[in-house]
Amino acid sequence: MATGTLILMRHGESTWNESNQFTGWVDVDLTDKGRAEAKRAGELLVEHDLLPDVLYTSLLRRAIATAQIALDVADRHWIPVVRDWRINERHYGALQGLDKAATKEKYGDEQFMLWRRSYDTPPPAIEPDAEYSQSSDPRYADLDAVPLTECLKDVVERMIPYFTEVIAQDLRAGKTVLIAAHGNSLRALVKHLEQISDADIAGLNIPTGNPRRYDLGDDLMPVGPGAYLDPEAAEAGAAAVAAQGEKK
Amino acid sequence: MATGTLILMRHGESTWNESNQFTGWVDVDLTDKGRAEAKRAGELLVEHDLLPDVLYTSLLRRAIATAQIALDVADRHWIPVVRDWRINERHYGALQGLDKAATKEKYGDEQFMLWRRSYDTPPPAIEPDAEYSQSSDPRYADLDAVPLTECLKDVVERMIPYFTEVIAQDLRAGKTVLIAAHGNSLRALVKHLEQISDADIAGLNIPTGNPRRYDLGDDLMPVGPGAYLDPEAAEAGAAAVAAQGEKK
Repeated sequence: MATGTLILMRHGESTWNESNQFTGWVDVDLTDKGRAEAKRAGELLVEHDLLPDVLYTSLLRRAIATAQIALDVADRHWIPVVRDWRINERHYGALQGLDKAATKEKYGDEQFMLWRRSYDTPPPAIEPDAEYSQSSDPRYADLDAVPLTECLKDVVERMIPYFTEVIAQDLRAGKTVLIAAHGNSLRALVKHLEQISDADIAGLNIPTGNPRRYDLGDDLMPVGPGAYLDPEAAEAGAAAVAAQGEKK
Repeated sequence: MATGTLILMRHGESTWNESNQFTGWVDVDLTDKGRAEAKRAGELLVEHDLLPDVLYTSLLRRAIATAQIALDVADRHWIPVVRDWRINERHYGALQGLDKAATKEKYGDEQFMLWRRSYDTPPPAIEPDAEYSQSSDPRYADLDAVPLTECLKDVVERMIPYFTEVIAQDLRAGKTVLIAAHGNSLRALVKHLEQISDADIAGLNIPTGNPRRYDLGDDLMPVGPGAYLDPEAAEAGAAAVAAQGEKK
């Protein structure tokens, strides 16, 4: 028997997606293209009659704004919203702020891909007082320790318990739950939902602004395959993510 | 001893403020001027170093959007948000959607002012299936009965218990609480906070997009007078609200 419906949505293009910089926990804004993607995501929700009952987002502007724009278009701007740092993008450590193409050129393809796609090797830690560190950011004041870097495994270890313990409550109540999040927090969640191995998850890329739907069973695992609401755009979008690090 | 800090903020100009129509629970959008007012409100919060820890809004787009814009400017877009129908504008009954000047001309000054400012006389009830009724609106599906009209007393009776029982918990925890709301839900709250009589509340007008600060004591009543963050604009703004119903 199906219980809740889960919609995963990666934020639209951000200013640092556009400028090809490692972003992580740096709180950059959407570009005009990103806002247009968010609007399109809202239209897709309406076209598929998939109206969220509750929204979960990270504490980062690009996810918060994408959800606001999409829900406003879908006339669901009034639903309850929960924001939590566990939904944040992977912390990119000392790479935060660096140009992706320059980093690839400097350290070589192998090291670059290891940092981007290794399951359990984090990038070098950021200095707590560095420009792009979040160690003094008031939004993380309640954390025991603000991360200085994370690998995907670290994201799995914060995101999945949050999903199975907190978000699960709304899903068990039969609600349609929208999670507006990030490339790597969504990769962590899809890894769990689709039982993808530590090795194979490297090949999974999540396109921006294209909601992905899962219908869940009583065990909160999918009863069928997940599906992007715009399958054609998803293919092109994932290819674009995979190509990051190439010179623009 | 002071406990929490309370910031009251009326939404910026809406499309029906501009067109001079009774709005109530009709979910109209902000105008460009309204968005500019919201931005200014955010700048005022920053200038006064008055950064909210938590946001309460109604379920109406004009309050939700005003808060989003203001908090984004103040770099507080990530704070927790609670939305509740008890913070909604007064339901204006069968007047919702009507032109204010035409209504005044048709029914006369006395009846017009009674509907606008009487403490306990509601306007005529709206038909549940009327164009501007909210009886089938999904956001109110959990209510025992969706209002068909309200006087200010009705707003007091839903808003004040919500303040003293729910919002109070955050204030007692010492937080700075932002309530983004409406002319009449804020009049209800100010009536309570400043102990204004049923008769005198008729003379109180709340300007748009100008945050008002109260420092509260242990009894959650103000320890001093409330203050608009922009006192000069508040005077002009309140006069503009009082003049509504005049032809534009």
